[in-house]
Amino acid sequence: MHRATEPTMNEFLTIRDAAAQIRAGKLRPQELLEQCWARIERYEARVRAWAYLDPDGARRQADQLTAELQQNHYRGPLHGIPIGIKDIIDVFDMPTGCGSTRWAKSFARADAECVRRLRQAGAIILGKTVTTAYASFDPPPTRNPWNLERTPGGSSSGSAAAVACGMCLGALATQTGGSITRPASYCGVVSLKPTFGRVSVAGVLPLAPRLDHVGVMALTAADCGIIFEAIRTAAAPPYGIWQRLLEPSDFAPPGLPEPAMAAAFAEFRSTTAARDWQWHTHTLPPSFADSRHNQYLLMAVEAAAYHGERCARYPDDYPPYVTQLIRDGQNCSAADYERALQHHAQFQAEIDSSFPEGWDTLATPASPGPAPAAETTGNPAFNTPWSYAGLPTLSLPIGWSPEGLPLSVQLIGRRHQDEMLIELAQRLEATVAIMRPPLPL
Amino acid sequence: MHRATEPTMNEFLTIRDAAAQIRAGKLRPQELLEQCWARIERYEARVRAWAYLDPDGARRQADQLTAELQQNHYRGPLHGIPIGIKDIIDVFDMPTGCGSTRWAKSFARADAECVRRLRQAGAIILGKTVTTAYASFDPPPTRNPWNLERTPGGSSSGSAAAVACGMCLGALATQTGGSITRPASYCGVVSLKPTFGRVSVAGVLPLAPRLDHVGVMALTAADCGIIFEAIRTAAAPPYGIWQRLLEPSDFAPPGLPEPAMAAAFAEFRSTTAARDWQWHTHTLPPSFADSRHNQYLLMAVEAAAYHGERCARYPDDYPPYVTQLIRDGQNCSAADYERALQHHAQFQAEIDSSFPEGWDTLATPASPGPAPAAETTGNPAFNTPWSYAGLPTLSLPIGWSPEGLPLSVQLIGRRHQDEMLIELAQRLEATVAIMRPPLPL
Repeated sequence: MHRATEPTMNEFLTIRDAAAQIRAGKLRPQELLEQCWARIERYEARVRAWAYLDPDGARRQADQLTAELQQNHYRGPLHGIPIGIKDIIDVFDMPTGCGSTRWAKSFARADAECVRRLRQAGAIILGKTVTTAYASFDPPPTRNPWNLERTPGGSSSGSAAAVACGMCLGALATQTGGSITRPASYCGVVSLKPTFGRVSVAGVLPLAPRLDHVGVMALTAADCGIIFEAIRTAAAPPYGIWQRLLEPSDFAPPGLPEPAMAAAFAEFRSTTAARDWQWHTHTLPPSFADSRHNQYLLMAVEAAAYHGERCARYPDDYPPYVTQLIRDGQNCSAADYERALQHHAQFQAEIDSSFPEGWDTLATPASPGPAPAAETTGNPAFNTPWSYAGLPTLSLPIGWSPEGLPLSVQLIGRRHQDEMLIELAQRLEATVAIMRPPLPL
Repeated sequence: MHRATEPTMNEFLTIRDAAAQIRAGKLRPQELLEQCWARIERYEARVRAWAYLDPDGARRQADQLTAELQQNHYRGPLHGIPIGIKDIIDVFDMPTGCGSTRWAKSFARADAECVRRLRQAGAIILGKTVTTAYASFDPPPTRNPWNLERTPGGSSSGSAAAVACGMCLGALATQTGGSITRPASYCGVVSLKPTFGRVSVAGVLPLAPRLDHVGVMALTAADCGIIFEAIRTAAAPPYGIWQRLLEPSDFAPPGLPEPAMAAAFAEFRSTTAARDWQWHTHTLPPSFADSRHNQYLLMAVEAAAYHGERCARYPDDYPPYVTQLIRDGQNCSAADYERALQHHAQFQAEIDSSFPEGWDTLATPASPGPAPAAETTGNPAFNTPWSYAGLPTLSLPIGWSPEGLPLSVQLIGRRHQDEMLIELAQRLEATVAIMRPPLPL
């Protein structure tokens, strides 16, 4: 079915629209929550986006937040907004299952810092969204809501699928390689992977602490911005006006992007160019060539440091891909690791200085193509360099493949210019007017 | 049976003695561990000191630490020493059960800071010792190894019982009211509750963060010092020479101490006085009178802040005493709480300045008498003021009641003079030569 030809669009409320209705007294948090529950009841048996749901707890939160509104206490745009939390991030008194069987009943004694901030901003914490085992590459039980035979991507599989189904209006996710951008792209939702360090990882399972990022998924860039504003820890440097884009040319592996993505990306470029967005082909610094290899080494060695002994002791708790990652880390020599660390520092400096004056953002495909079959979590080739760089990225759906699957662009910002990236993405959304067809489920 | 008349004594190795043998190559960590396992097998079915044991993990640690010694890598006096950890303190990949049924399988994803330090110092982490529910007052399954009808005290019940049985050579414990000193006293082991803040509470279930302390139990003051040196976070101020004691007169509730404790305490005083220890009766500041009441209010309100909603939601997870504590906290008015906070600040200042120049330590009974029946965890009246004050305390067995139960003295030091208190206690141990009869089990 070719979704692009069916114009019944945008069936789910955005955070911004829901917040406006809540603030105006036209929608109670309790009602919004029940809308989300109705969608969970409708889709969850097939999509399996959730590792743990807390209906009773969510209703208590909604009751309290509704009561606060009746007393004219409005916390801000997240007041009463249902949010899902990736299952490697601690939520008080919910399990942090981490995609592990042994840890599946490990109830957290405190909220992770990012969750504490969300709660304080008035968000309703619905439950925990499925992660691949230890946020690595093994396929999760979750399916892509646009096609149940396809992967939702990983590792933030449940967060992407849940937002795509309107089960929650936003979700927290994490990325070490491509674990935010890729599932968001495959599921047709917007994602923000902030600058490294802009969101605290306290209370989050580490995979590779030099590369781990907490980020956000929602239906629009504005919604990502609303959540990011609540969870960001460091203040942003001031930023100026910008309206220009750079386009990468030299880092896609052979055969990437696939034809559907290449067509969508070209159309995105021409549509935006027709509305006065300037484009320029950008050459990446020489150190870019080795970024993927070294990103993998850092991830593998840090994963081995955390998981190595545990994986040897409980091999049944580790599916094949993450086991391989840990083994690769264990087999890496200290000399190779040291070279990777040196490359990491050099690459970060070079990539920062390679942004030409006045050109503030790179655009690339967010994934090689639409979501592949559910036996993998897809190829993170377009995402890992930016996790490794620590630069902020935002992914935005730009169209639909012939078989009705979403395709997204990835915007890459300057370090610490996350807020600028969100603002740019909002202008792009307004420019290209991406419409979201109804789910086929 | 009157233990004091039976002179077969000191059947278990101290940390200092074990460390000397390990360093000299006369004892391998693997052998010491098997000695501990033998005692666990002998006593645990009756004493029930452990919430979780990890024989396989402990043997892996022992193998590694034994191998390090063979390569001449000696980490220090905790190298290869088996230690138990109270079950509200996180140990990587062991559950932190907190005496809760709902949290019983909550495997920790990281070591608490104090455990991380112990591990780095070479300690073997044996398992998790029983805590009362949420480190409050409800009787635990653990029994007193000196008399199975009696309580081991609480809330660090398992830590005290395990050390008393030689199942481990030392243990971590926590105190908010009397949860270290009281069980140590009832079980006849030495305990150190450090100055508030001297040991990190990161990774430890809170009961009342203004009052929560992590501390130590072992067979001797020297052993407590060895563990404390590994886990203390802040550097100590310098201290001088001291040999004098103060004795409290005016804070014991009516009827306390009981006759057996009063006799043991009097004998301790006269024995030490005969060896040139100077004693003086001390008058506590006026704010002392309200310390117990206000300590309870702080503990109750902070416990309610953490547990209140959860207790309402999962009442079956909260036994009666802790439920009452939480209710009392919920029923406390903000005005009363504010007065308690003001009293807390005033009391801390007054108690610090009430230590006369040159007199460095108070001595009191560590508990009203020997361990009472197992239906309670005993009376913390002699301990709560010092948790509230945040001053370091060290408890030391000084004798045995007519029915063969241990009796201890509590030494109270100046703020941050933990090291001085340990040194004093070691001199006292040498002076009074307390002998430890064999367990009746």
